[in-house]
Amino acid sequence: MQNMLTPPGFTEITPTSAIDVDRHGGRAKCLQRLIRLDMPVPRTVALDFNTVHDISLGQLPDIERLLSVFGPDPLLSVRPSSLDPDWGGPSAILNIGMNDAAHARLTESHGEDAANALYLRFIRAYGVHVSRLDPDEFELTGSPDAEAVAKALAHFHEETDESFPQDIATQLSEVLRAMARAWEGTTARLLREARGAPTDAGLGLVVQQMALGVGKGLSGSGVVQFVSGTTGEREIRGRYLCKSQGRDALNANGDVMYLSRDERGRSIEEVLPDCYADLMRYGDLTRNRLREEMQIEFTIENSQLHILDAVRVPRSPRANLIIAVALARDAIISEEEAVMRVPPRSLSEMLHSQVDPEGPRDVIVSGIAASPGAATGKIVFSSRAAQALAAQDEACILVRRETTPEDIRGMHAAKAVLTERGGITSHAAVIARGLGLPCVVGANEMKLDSKAKTLRTADGRVLTEGDVITIDGSAGEALMGAAEMQEPDLGDEFQTLLHWADRARDIGVRANADTPADAQKARTFLAEGIGLCRTEHMFFDRERLLAMREMIFADKSEDRRAALDRILPMQRADFAQLFRIMQGQPVTIRLFDPPLHEFLPQGHEGMAELAEALDLNVGAVTRRVEALSEFNPMLGMRGVRLGITVPEIYDMQARAIFEATLDSSEEGGKPVVPEVMIPLVSAKREVEIVKARIDAVAAAVKAERGRDFDYRLGVMVETPRAALRAGEIAQHAAFLSFGTNDLTQMTYGLSRDDAGRFMGRYVQQGVYAEDPFHTLDVDGVGELLEIGAERGRRGNSDVVLGICGEHGGNPESIAFCRDAGFDYVSCSPYRVPVARLAAAHLAIASRGKGRPRVTR
Amino acid sequence: MQNMLTPPGFTEITPTSAIDVDRHGGRAKCLQRLIRLDMPVPRTVALDFNTVHDISLGQLPDIERLLSVFGPDPLLSVRPSSLDPDWGGPSAILNIGMNDAAHARLTESHGEDAANALYLRFIRAYGVHVSRLDPDEFELTGSPDAEAVAKALAHFHEETDESFPQDIATQLSEVLRAMARAWEGTTARLLREARGAPTDAGLGLVVQQMALGVGKGLSGSGVVQFVSGTTGEREIRGRYLCKSQGRDALNANGDVMYLSRDERGRSIEEVLPDCYADLMRYGDLTRNRLREEMQIEFTIENSQLHILDAVRVPRSPRANLIIAVALARDAIISEEEAVMRVPPRSLSEMLHSQVDPEGPRDVIVSGIAASPGAATGKIVFSSRAAQALAAQDEACILVRRETTPEDIRGMHAAKAVLTERGGITSHAAVIARGLGLPCVVGANEMKLDSKAKTLRTADGRVLTEGDVITIDGSAGEALMGAAEMQEPDLGDEFQTLLHWADRARDIGVRANADTPADAQKARTFLAEGIGLCRTEHMFFDRERLLAMREMIFADKSEDRRAALDRILPMQRADFAQLFRIMQGQPVTIRLFDPPLHEFLPQGHEGMAELAEALDLNVGAVTRRVEALSEFNPMLGMRGVRLGITVPEIYDMQARAIFEATLDSSEEGGKPVVPEVMIPLVSAKREVEIVKARIDAVAAAVKAERGRDFDYRLGVMVETPRAALRAGEIAQHAAFLSFGTNDLTQMTYGLSRDDAGRFMGRYVQQGVYAEDPFHTLDVDGVGELLEIGAERGRRGNSDVVLGICGEHGGNPESIAFCRDAGFDYVSCSPYRVPVARLAAAHLAIASRGKGRPRVTR
Repeated sequence: MQNMLTPPGFTEITPTSAIDVDRHGGRAKCLQRLIRLDMPVPRTVALDFNTVHDISLGQLPDIERLLSVFGPDPLLSVRPSSLDPDWGGPSAILNIGMNDAAHARLTESHGEDAANALYLRFIRAYGVHVSRLDPDEFELTGSPDAEAVAKALAHFHEETDESFPQDIATQLSEVLRAMARAWEGTTARLLREARGAPTDAGLGLVVQQMALGVGKGLSGSGVVQFVSGTTGEREIRGRYLCKSQGRDALNANGDVMYLSRDERGRSIEEVLPDCYADLMRYGDLTRNRLREEMQIEFTIENSQLHILDAVRVPRSPRANLIIAVALARDAIISEEEAVMRVPPRSLSEMLHSQVDPEGPRDVIVSGIAASPGAATGKIVFSSRAAQALAAQDEACILVRRETTPEDIRGMHAAKAVLTERGGITSHAAVIARGLGLPCVVGANEMKLDSKAKTLRTADGRVLTEGDVITIDGSAGEALMGAAEMQEPDLGDEFQTLLHWADRARDIGVRANADTPADAQKARTFLAEGIGLCRTEHMFFDRERLLAMREMIFADKSEDRRAALDRILPMQRADFAQLFRIMQGQPVTIRLFDPPLHEFLPQGHEGMAELAEALDLNVGAVTRRVEALSEFNPMLGMRGVRLGITVPEIYDMQARAIFEATLDSSEEGGKPVVPEVMIPLVSAKREVEIVKARIDAVAAAVKAERGRDFDYRLGVMVETPRAALRAGEIAQHAAFLSFGTNDLTQMTYGLSRDDAGRFMGRYVQQGVYAEDPFHTLDVDGVGELLEIGAERGRRGNSDVVLGICGEHGGNPESIAFCRDAGFDYVSCSPYRVPVARLAAAHLAIASRGKGRPRVTR
Repeated sequence: MQNMLTPPGFTEITPTSAIDVDRHGGRAKCLQRLIRLDMPVPRTVALDFNTVHDISLGQLPDIERLLSVFGPDPLLSVRPSSLDPDWGGPSAILNIGMNDAAHARLTESHGEDAANALYLRFIRAYGVHVSRLDPDEFELTGSPDAEAVAKALAHFHEETDESFPQDIATQLSEVLRAMARAWEGTTARLLREARGAPTDAGLGLVVQQMALGVGKGLSGSGVVQFVSGTTGEREIRGRYLCKSQGRDALNANGDVMYLSRDERGRSIEEVLPDCYADLMRYGDLTRNRLREEMQIEFTIENSQLHILDAVRVPRSPRANLIIAVALARDAIISEEEAVMRVPPRSLSEMLHSQVDPEGPRDVIVSGIAASPGAATGKIVFSSRAAQALAAQDEACILVRRETTPEDIRGMHAAKAVLTERGGITSHAAVIARGLGLPCVVGANEMKLDSKAKTLRTADGRVLTEGDVITIDGSAGEALMGAAEMQEPDLGDEFQTLLHWADRARDIGVRANADTPADAQKARTFLAEGIGLCRTEHMFFDRERLLAMREMIFADKSEDRRAALDRILPMQRADFAQLFRIMQGQPVTIRLFDPPLHEFLPQGHEGMAELAEALDLNVGAVTRRVEALSEFNPMLGMRGVRLGITVPEIYDMQARAIFEATLDSSEEGGKPVVPEVMIPLVSAKREVEIVKARIDAVAAAVKAERGRDFDYRLGVMVETPRAALRAGEIAQHAAFLSFGTNDLTQMTYGLSRDDAGRFMGRYVQQGVYAEDPFHTLDVDGVGELLEIGAERGRRGNSDVVLGICGEHGGNPESIAFCRDAGFDYVSCSPYRVPVARLAAAHLAIASRGKGRPRVTR
């Protein structure tokens, strides 16, 4: 009666039974597909998510009825079947049904060794996974003789105060219950949530008739796949172990057999050619019909092939990309599906050298993984030393307490950066990501003595300048010596996939690029222009720095102008070079932003030098330096505030930009339409004042050169007030580019340079769900972006909206910006591929739904 | 025909003619009132605003027709009549109609001297105000003989190439045109706008028949009022000058006559008793019927009294208040009208000592007027020196480059503060306003040498410690020596007026008070509780500071707790004292807010001392101090971030608050409901975590003492994010108090400590309409207040909303907060009276319209 009213909760998998991946999980569905392809899959029953959840609550399905599917005295396996195999699940349990009687039967049919081995194996699995006994007590050493079985049964009795269960229904019930409960445990839940599973993800289970693999002769089990999980190249790889079960062959060292003749030793191809031929055929079938590279688990018993299971081939990010492209090229999947099969973030790892994960690691200090990739070089403690070594073509690693803008040239010269202080968005981290330099910050266990030029590691070793270390920016570690490396090779497939992605994408992707090298990278990664070119680094060249300092010390406008005039030709050349590289693509140049004191020396020695260079007395220099120092430089006299109070700087920069625009087009390049961006705006009037001066400079350059050119003037929205007042600001701006770094700092009242000290604990305790400098804070900063975008567009329906903070390359941020109707995102060159792919994912995923774009 | 279609634009003032203050101005209306009171006002015609505006554009009314009102050959005066007399206007011009013929007639009727005097006077006025000739050329020296008249006429001809006009219609036309155009000039417009006039404010004119005052005997003119413009006390004050016109008597030195016998010399009361009696009667009439203390301008010609004009008695803020209260007490005006007659800001000046404006001023340096009032004392250059002098009861002035929290005790000890750096919201300025200390900041023309302990003034004088100076915080100046002072005397009327204000007010006013002295002041000024009690100053006492430092250097929670346990009893006593003073009124205590590095010494010497005190080596101390230093302390590890990462501090403070609550009620005081406020919140979870700990401390204290008490836990909204997320934050908060200082900093991305360097220029250039730290930025910060209030109330309909930034005491901010539905404002004790009065103004002004309060 009950069976007629409620479904039994389990379903035998047949070609036509109702198996649904959303109810029974991926493994159950995959097994049904194998069955439909006529593969010899042993009889299998699937338990759905609800049933397993009920089991975890103590309510079992009709076990006797379930057992009846398999005929009398079966031996069974139970395996997990969640929606996504990556979410993990309890270990498979084999040989359910082994008891004294089965042992006797098996001794007869397969011999005593085989019977003992299976019984011992099951007692151990049951003891550990069901009765939660200590696994160490069950180590299966020695020969699987009768004594070992007796000992195991006695141990089980001793520990549990119960005899080992002999009834198969009891065994199966307890196994199902244990697996169902394991899924509900906190650790398992956290683990799978970390892998992207929803909180209420369900577990299905598959109960399968055992194919024993312990029979006579060549009986055994193995695993085969048709592609390399490391390179993604097509090749037959497999292992087989006689008298084994499940995946034993993968872990065995000794008597393992290989699949094909091409592999090292004795092969199935030679000894069991029929089985081999079937496996090859099954490989083709799975690839073409399951549309995926599968790893097939099989058992051969008495020359009879059984296919027990198939899973996606575990693979490196790189292999995943190559497999996806190959499947699409073979027309097995569509190009869009190939795009969707490559997680955007997985590209990052392919763009950088990596420390060989197999190589030895001598970690000298750990910190925050601030910029991925790895590099080896000699330790230097100053930018000057870095430049000196770079001049001799020696690789070096810049090690600093923290970096300042004065270290930019040192960072350019170094192969990697290690800092004692700072967080994921500290100066060192931001610049390193921009440069694509491996970087570890906040390595606060090391002690730097910059005078003595020593680095004391966490474990007390003392390194000095010139010692070789390796920075693993992906792992956030510094390693002693030159670690073994894996070099990146982007290859044809990489470009092909991104090319397919670009076809689908509907939001622009630009790069943040300050230098010709950055710009070149931006081109390589097919960025659609430069969304943020910071100009301050252009003032740190020795000659320019002196002119800057003269400018700072000048009291009269003419003198400031004269000092800046010396920088003008150099800056013009900088811009012309950028324009040439970008070949007519948009280049957004942010006008000078940092506080002037960043250009002044700090120590007494530096001030004395400067005094001499400027022919002033040291007291005057010291006073000026002190007068310019600020309590909170982030919130001080910088950006447009400087542009308004010392207008000569912007005048010079505007002239350099416009003259470079003409120069580069005269050289026959594509015409450039430079975008001039005003930083740190908080009021409309600031834009009006700067715009009037910039327009005047443009008019003057046009008149002097007798030639016309276009340019756009826009505003960097990075204060909360600029976002709130975007409506009126946009009336004077051709574009609004949202600087989410500063906007996050000001919205939270949180300096990214100082947040490192507690951000870790804050995220750990869940005070902030994520580091807002790492993942865009949708609730707070995001609302300001939405307000700014909406009001900006209302104030000026033609305004172009972009985002140029560090968040620009994050897939989540791109989704947010796309929803808010932004025209483009801009990010570090190395994140451009990630952004292009992420944007394509969003566009494809919302296909049909259409882009939720603000009507313009 | 034309006259029938368009009104003539002028109206003779009669008791019943249509004179309207909104069209003809205050003077015209006042004259009509005098006429209605049967005073002998000469025939008068009023020109309305439109007519005068048309005149300025060249379109004159029918002058002949206007003249016809006055009969043949009149002599006339023209005076300005704007809506509000305070808005200024062109000078009156008398004796229009004087020409050769009139001169001849007057010579006959009044004698040659009188005729010459009037003619000369008119030629000069006409030349200067109509023909714009140099006033110096017309100095009326020497006797007014025929030669002088001839010379004046010749000078006029020479300068203008035209004869002096003889036709009265021409004279009047030109005078009207000149006065109309003067009103439209830029300077006049800026001047009156600065006094609160709208951009389109109109000018009316009154044309009046002259009462000459140059007749025989005692003929002349004078001015009388019945109240002191300085003290507001009732007394007859008047001056009269024979053979004079207009207000000559006020400026004359010699032969002036007084009004009443009680005054110094010969009096009108004696020599013209009938006129005197009439004037006394007119005084009573104006006071009772015009409901104001008026100054009456009169002329006596041949014993005949003429009333020419009456204006509000010019008065000091203090006199204004006393007059308003007296009028209300005499039931001439209502109490509410008295309240409305006192501008809120005018109270500030009454609360502080002032430098006597008549006394000599030797200014040594100018800066920003950061906190009003004046004080004299000896210069000290350190807080230590300030405390030392205070201990000897010697008044001292603390002079610093800038102040830091370590200077708090020095500021408490000093009588006034002078700093070289900082703006209106620098540390020195904020604290000084809170303490009611006169303060000048940003006096960057002086040079401080704190080592040599000298102050070099702008003009090169060098002062040393112990030299006496006076700080005039109202003028923003430091004066040499002990300047002459005027002491404040609030008096009974002050309290009476505020009592009336409180009856009308519908938004609460609390005080920001950190110390018992502040709290006492808050009580004196009838604040309704403390809206912000900052607790950091409580840690700067020598003994506590050492415990704080021990806490900072402790590595384990127990050690931190042990160090803080030593501060607990002192802090408990602090709070108990505050609660006793506030007698059951709400006290909002902000938990510890500043970064820890503020509690560490700065120089090498200080570190060495600290190392000895803590028994550590200097290197370890230096390293810890360096490790705690921050790039942007404002955006760093402070407020709730400290509360979460070093929770022992808030635990101790909560315990101190709750134990003090019980202690003070055990002493028989009114029960206190302390309000505990969490600073720098940016995420809901911060509130949840702190709330859980505070609630636990409360439960523990209740259990230990076996007694119950109430408390409220609230949040200081001072990050943009907290305002945006106020909805969810309010769910865990009994109140939200908006800290507009920090909110302004973060909304603009602008540090108040650093803004001083360019704020002046920014406001001058109109980049910001106002300094946003001084006047609430309604467009940006204001929108966040509105968003926060609205969402907070939606999230928790019982939440109490307050504002506790420096803006809290500004009338404009109070208006804004009232409109946004806030429950109270909190401000420095010295601004409480201003706030109470401003709030009353708003409530009365919106009476009928009702308070635009958000529905709860």
